[in-house]
Amino acid sequence: MGNSFGHLFRITTFGESHGGGVGVVIDGCPPQIDLNEGDIQADLDRRRPGQSRMTTPRKETDTCEILSGVFQGKTLGTPITILVRNKDTRPQDYGEMAEVYRPSHADATYDAKYGIRNWQGGGRSSARETIGRVAAGAIAKKILGQVAGVEIIGYVRQIKDVEAAIDPNHVTLDQVEANMIRCPDPTTAEKMIALVDDIRRQANSVGGIVECVARNVPKGLGEPVFDKLEADLAKAVMSLPASKGFEIGSGFAGTQLTGLEHNDEFYSDDRGQIRTVTNRSGGVQGGISNGENIVIRVAFKPTATIGSAQRTVNKEGEATILAAKGRHDPCVLPRAVPMVEAMVALVLCDHLLRNHAQCHLLR
Amino acid sequence: MGNSFGHLFRITTFGESHGGGVGVVIDGCPPQIDLNEGDIQADLDRRRPGQSRMTTPRKETDTCEILSGVFQGKTLGTPITILVRNKDTRPQDYGEMAEVYRPSHADATYDAKYGIRNWQGGGRSSARETIGRVAAGAIAKKILGQVAGVEIIGYVRQIKDVEAAIDPNHVTLDQVEANMIRCPDPTTAEKMIALVDDIRRQANSVGGIVECVARNVPKGLGEPVFDKLEADLAKAVMSLPASKGFEIGSGFAGTQLTGLEHNDEFYSDDRGQIRTVTNRSGGVQGGISNGENIVIRVAFKPTATIGSAQRTVNKEGEATILAAKGRHDPCVLPRAVPMVEAMVALVLCDHLLRNHAQCHLLR
Amino acid sequence: MGNSFGHLFRITTFGESHGGGVGVVIDGCPPQIDLNEGDIQADLDRRRPGQSRMTTPRKETDTCEILSGVFQGKTLGTPITILVRNKDTRPQDYGEMAEVYRPSHADATYDAKYGIRNWQGGGRSSARETIGRVAAGAIAKKILGQVAGVEIIGYVRQIKDVEAAIDPNHVTLDQVEANMIRCPDPTTAEKMIALVDDIRRQANSVGGIVECVARNVPKGLGEPVFDKLEADLAKAVMSLPASKGFEIGSGFAGTQLTGLEHNDEFYSDDRGQIRTVTNRSGGVQGGISNGENIVIRVAFKPTATIGSAQRTVNKEGEATILAAKGRHDPCVLPRAVPMVEAMVALVLCDHLLRNHAQCHLLR
Amino acid sequence: MGNSFGHLFRITTFGESHGGGVGVVIDGCPPQIDLNEGDIQADLDRRRPGQSRMTTPRKETDTCEILSGVFQGKTLGTPITILVRNKDTRPQDYGEMAEVYRPSHADATYDAKYGIRNWQGGGRSSARETIGRVAAGAIAKKILGQVAGVEIIGYVRQIKDVEAAIDPNHVTLDQVEANMIRCPDPTTAEKMIALVDDIRRQANSVGGIVECVARNVPKGLGEPVFDKLEADLAKAVMSLPASKGFEIGSGFAGTQLTGLEHNDEFYSDDRGQIRTVTNRSGGVQGGISNGENIVIRVAFKPTATIGSAQRTVNKEGEATILAAKGRHDPCVLPRAVPMVEAMVALVLCDHLLRNHAQCHLLR
Repeated sequence: MGNSFGHLFRITTFGESHGGGVGVVIDGCPPQIDLNEGDIQADLDRRRPGQSRMTTPRKETDTCEILSGVFQGKTLGTPITILVRNKDTRPQDYGEMAEVYRPSHADATYDAKYGIRNWQGGGRSSARETIGRVAAGAIAKKILGQVAGVEIIGYVRQIKDVEAAIDPNHVTLDQVEANMIRCPDPTTAEKMIALVDDIRRQANSVGGIVECVARNVPKGLGEPVFDKLEADLAKAVMSLPASKGFEIGSGFAGTQLTGLEHNDEFYSDDRGQIRTVTNRSGGVQGGISNGENIVIRVAFKPTATIGSAQRTVNKEGEATILAAKGRHDPCVLPRAVPMVEAMVALVLCDHLLRNHAQCHLLR
Repeated sequence: MGNSFGHLFRITTFGESHGGGVGVVIDGCPPQIDLNEGDIQADLDRRRPGQSRMTTPRKETDTCEILSGVFQGKTLGTPITILVRNKDTRPQDYGEMAEVYRPSHADATYDAKYGIRNWQGGGRSSARETIGRVAAGAIAKKILGQVAGVEIIGYVRQIKDVEAAIDPNHVTLDQVEANMIRCPDPTTAEKMIALVDDIRRQANSVGGIVECVARNVPKGLGEPVFDKLEADLAKAVMSLPASKGFEIGSGFAGTQLTGLEHNDEFYSDDRGQIRTVTNRSGGVQGGISNGENIVIRVAFKPTATIGSAQRTVNKEGEATILAAKGRHDPCVLPRAVPMVEAMVALVLCDHLLRNHAQCHLLR
Repeated sequence: MGNSFGHLFRITTFGESHGGGVGVVIDGCPPQIDLNEGDIQADLDRRRPGQSRMTTPRKETDTCEILSGVFQGKTLGTPITILVRNKDTRPQDYGEMAEVYRPSHADATYDAKYGIRNWQGGGRSSARETIGRVAAGAIAKKILGQVAGVEIIGYVRQIKDVEAAIDPNHVTLDQVEANMIRCPDPTTAEKMIALVDDIRRQANSVGGIVECVARNVPKGLGEPVFDKLEADLAKAVMSLPASKGFEIGSGFAGTQLTGLEHNDEFYSDDRGQIRTVTNRSGGVQGGISNGENIVIRVAFKPTATIGSAQRTVNKEGEATILAAKGRHDPCVLPRAVPMVEAMVALVLCDHLLRNHAQCHLLR
Repeated sequence: MGNSFGHLFRITTFGESHGGGVGVVIDGCPPQIDLNEGDIQADLDRRRPGQSRMTTPRKETDTCEILSGVFQGKTLGTPITILVRNKDTRPQDYGEMAEVYRPSHADATYDAKYGIRNWQGGGRSSARETIGRVAAGAIAKKILGQVAGVEIIGYVRQIKDVEAAIDPNHVTLDQVEANMIRCPDPTTAEKMIALVDDIRRQANSVGGIVECVARNVPKGLGEPVFDKLEADLAKAVMSLPASKGFEIGSGFAGTQLTGLEHNDEFYSDDRGQIRTVTNRSGGVQGGISNGENIVIRVAFKPTATIGSAQRTVNKEGEATILAAKGRHDPCVLPRAVPMVEAMVALVLCDHLLRNHAQCHLLR
């Protein structure tokens, strides 16, 4: 269990890092949407390894094949299956991992839970699993754009202690994609790149914060009480590998304000729309989107896999020393950007359908 | 939709602040567990209004009735329904709310989504909804304790800028319950109480951070990839009213460390158990519990309802001024403690059942 | 688990025959629908015991209370909870059942599964559980009527070997309600009533077949491949107590025809609608409604509880003789009619919402 | 939606008759079960076209590939994906179907629902979709066999008016597989084969009844009230293409008996097990398995696709004549046998896990 996400726009991902491939089945996609592999490949290319020296050198083109659900360039309303074959696998790099647990990785917990584990490249716990999410997210983005002009843009806001000040209301995809670290502030981006270069040379790793904004989200998305929009967004991104924290709007910093300072006062804009003067709510109030920009932040820990030697144990619990040999990212942040965007898109698309069902049947 | 939570130990809450009552149906509870109203009332009393001057003066005993699912003091395996009637309702206090939107509240978004809203005391968006969660959480705690000796303890770690340093490994329920702010550090607790007293007199409000630890959690709970334990925990607490952020283990602060500093090295303890030297993972690795203490933190914004005047609009979008007259908490944190505990218990209990089904069928 | 039904219009029933009461929570109901207890009570009255000498003499008015989800006479979009208290309980009648298993009842299997059982009046396995279904079904009928003019009419088609020939295309609710056996053919109804009177005097019981038609169902309801409309209808009615068989359209008799005889040829009617000349499909093709009348039949076994002596065993497996003392129906068919209608309504309403979400988002 | 089945042992099928392929993702499979393609291929071979002159001549080996979830011959507990490529596709045979609706097929309803349809070979409504079910069912059978020695055997009981009398308590797989019609009574099998040969020559088709028995099913499977075992079995088989009716135990014929005749009296067998003298309940009482053999029957209509000319309409509603040119089965029954078995296995395996979770956690 646990490999499906969403209630109406529902995806199921599958696959391990080494083996037949990875992919996704999307059930509940509306029919008659234009779709081809190109629509999906664009985001997969932003996620794939080897795209820059910021990322793991594993060479995968991550070329996707649509196996089902599309006919003559349009979605059928039936399950869309997308498959990416694993190509550049090097099981020999991982032989040691069959026996030795990598610190802060999933090796030991998979063994504890299942009593078995595909130890080649992390198996199911590999970030390759997110290929399915990003592929499905590309379709969700397309629907959201088509129905409501929704724009979802993620970017690196912080790497270790290097932080950028970005205005989520005006950031563009071009700014994000202008550099290999995906920080839309060029000056900070250079510092981040230098930091990652440095840390890679030290066989070490760093983490940071991805911020993501969703603009033009219709009012009314989110289902009280458990499926509040922020709750589903939190689950969505906290299910990404290496994520350790989530916040929306004012987040943790909002605890430093009083209610009088924190509340978003209402006004009517010149089109008669009820708006808020500030957006400390982050676009969601009472679990439901209010039409303001949705702004979230996700903390990613430093990559667990590092080339430096660390103390650990093997399956039998005997002490040993491990220095990772497999290929890995010194910093997952640039590749996490399309993953976060995908998860936000999946949540919004699912709630778009849910809201349409319950609240627009009789309108 | 959205009023159910959990996959096997599944709860559905219902009810509005004013009206017939609030409650919960719990489906999937194991049979033959000793259960009576007293087991549930203890946590409801920690959640109820009017328990101290830190909370809203609304007078509700929140006395619960078990309507179904229990026979001769034991659970039947059939749905357990728990009902709490609303008593001290004052709809007259809320007349203005029928027309005017409270800033940073759910009034405007409920209207945008449903086109209708029970404006008495916040209706479904009222924190009274959490009665059902806390009642169900009490049962989940009981099962977790009985099966594995799991202890779940929440406490107030920070109110505005007053922060306590608590050791989650040793904190006790008695320490938490020793003062009305539910901060187990007595000195800091006094400062927090003084702060809340002060802010209440100013007709203002404050927020803060609740930390929660779960000890003795068996290894193996959590289902990769979307239902990772931290993902379900994040959803669980981010579905609580007023929550704005979530973190597990090192959380956002962990982004300041390198991988070498952050990783939790493994060792074998004297009972031959594989353990980690540090616990920056917060008890979860690869989405699965590793047997270490699970430690999470939740940011709660300052209460939206305040007695001070704020600019807002009415349903027609006309500008107006609102100063809340209904009863409300100057700070939700003390009452949020049992809510967070309940949500953690619900997640762990559900995953206990899920893990048992898939991974213990053949053992 | 297992006490919820539906994906978007989702109900959860609760309660035992003896105890606090029985009821239902409905999640996902569209907002702003006029609703009061009277809308629900009408169908509950058709289901309640003691309504005629055809049914059990247990005296329950089954008066319902709406606990939540309705405000000022309209649905809120939040969970609707409906509670019916148990009144005329006689636990003393059931003392023997604590120890002795009634043949073809749920006593032994509940004990085998849960190791515990509320033996008063059948507990959760009592037909009183269907109160929640009928209450929720009344709301589903209202939505279906409002959105699409859907009419759902059930009736008794056969009792033991007495069978009526009814035209599902023209039968009316008034015809059904014209007699206490709910067979719209008055002549056959009299024979059925005489048969039941006779069998009751013999302390025996009989079963039969309920047929149900849904008219004006929009095209397009039903989700291939597992949630085909006939599959969900089958599950819906096979979850009713005492049901042993289901068929749609030509059903089992259709196996006697060749394809050439069985196929429903298409034509265009005078409004340009594509229709079928015959309706052996029963209104569903490929799992999706085709706009023709949906016609199903459900076989109900003779009531298991009978006053005559039968051989059985007690909990320890010791042989004994049992003659039921509790109150019971000599024939469940008349009361099964509103139950079948309710289940059909719940399936159609859920699929109406599902189809609206996926297939009408972009139209 | 609608392409997933099961709650804990949950499958999602995908694919169209013509296109990249068909397959299934299985989530929730217990880990460490021996599994390879051979385990699955055996049942796929019983399902595949072209296996005898009783079936469609389409030539597909239906060779399966396990894409994920298995490592070194054992299940990982992660999603198992099984893919079968489409090989012998002849889209040119189906050109007419782009425009013309086949009577009693899914063409018109898919168009009405989705506004688009893969008209090559029936697309998603093709029986090729059941490949995923049969593949997943093979795994479910393996688990059921390993855990409890469960045996599931389906067979053709009736073709049109030719009916066999089979004892479900003693029928063997060898008897079923001894002839190409899969009727374990050799004499009747010959008559059935002659009948199908005859009907095929007439460019016509026939239907019939598949009976299926599950032996050694543990007591306690099935979840009251909606997920009663018979309800989930009914849904399972009524979701198969061409099914029109379902019954369990005494089924429709049971309505001819009185309660005194119908009830299954209890006794204790020589091992002290509580058993029933008769089995009119069909192995399920109160929705829960009672340890007796589960016996169900499924009515399949005559194949809709026939070579004879029929009146129909095209997409524009214009009258036309159609005689099918694509390859098709004159009688689906022999191939439906492994499909029914698979669906029964999927239901039982899911409920085995569900029962284990709720009712064996504390035992």
